[in-house]
Amino acid sequence: MLCLLLTSPTAFAQTGGTAGAKPSTESQIRVVLDAQVTAWNAGKLEAFMDGYWRSPELTFFSGGRRLQGWDATIERYRKTYQAEGKEMGKLDFSDLDIQPLGDAAAVVRGRFRLKLSGGQELGGLYTLIFRRFEDGWKIVHDHTSSNQ
Amino acid sequence: MLCLLLTSPTAFAQTGGTAGAKPSTESQIRVVLDAQVTAWNAGKLEAFMDGYWRSPELTFFSGGRRLQGWDATIERYRKTYQAEGKEMGKLDFSDLDIQPLGDAAAVVRGRFRLKLSGGQELGGLYTLIFRRFEDGWKIVHDHTSSNQ
Repeated sequence: MLCLLLTSPTAFAQTGGTAGAKPSTESQIRVVLDAQVTAWNAGKLEAFMDGYWRSPELTFFSGGRRLQGWDATIERYRKTYQAEGKEMGKLDFSDLDIQPLGDAAAVVRGRFRLKLSGGQELGGLYTLIFRRFEDGWKIVHDHTSSNQ
Repeated sequence: MLCLLLTSPTAFAQTGGTAGAKPSTESQIRVVLDAQVTAWNAGKLEAFMDGYWRSPELTFFSGGRRLQGWDATIERYRKTYQAEGKEMGKLDFSDLDIQPLGDAAAVVRGRFRLKLSGGQELGGLYTLIFRRFEDGWKIVHDHTSSNQ
């Protein structure tokens, strides 16, 4: 039993419901995603990017294009949403499904919507792989497909 | 030590190299992917689909479109590649990266290319989530983005 507790630190919390239990993987990841949405909608791209693993090994797939590394990812966001004539718009996530994979990883499936000025709307689907690090859960891989 | 061995059955195999060791997660998943490519290139769509979890909970994201369930997924493949005037072409995978997540799941990142008659070529990126079941490793989620 001690062995089980030592090697599966989140197993107890994931069954949920007990007062004082460690927050579940799902609720910890929801906090990261909520913080990303709040940061985006405040125009704070660096704070939004805090949800991503700050590593050259971060990968970002979108529309058949592969980006690698945190620096390349924030650069792409800057060019797409903060360049002259661009806007960040208002972001929301829906249809979230968070599935723990072992006790230190999870896959998140969801839908994003970005409302721009003038009524224009972008949206699509994403798959995120999260890993648990000492400083919390971070996205190590993002695959996004736009409706457009 | 016994505890470690009991709770991490793949840890030893994943370090690899010892005669008689259980095949690593990576090599087991490669076998599934290789079998899929072989099946596809033989025009055997059912055999190709054997790599996917035969469940209503299988999810398939592509170009902003969400499909759910093994039946809906094979139906979409049939319409896209086996309908009148369509062809399955010749498939290959490249740039494969297989990362175990715990001992019963893995994420696979890769690139696909489909050569059609007349020199036409389709391609793009995929992210696959695999889970280990009693009958082997199966894709439980597929997110594919085409270059086109």
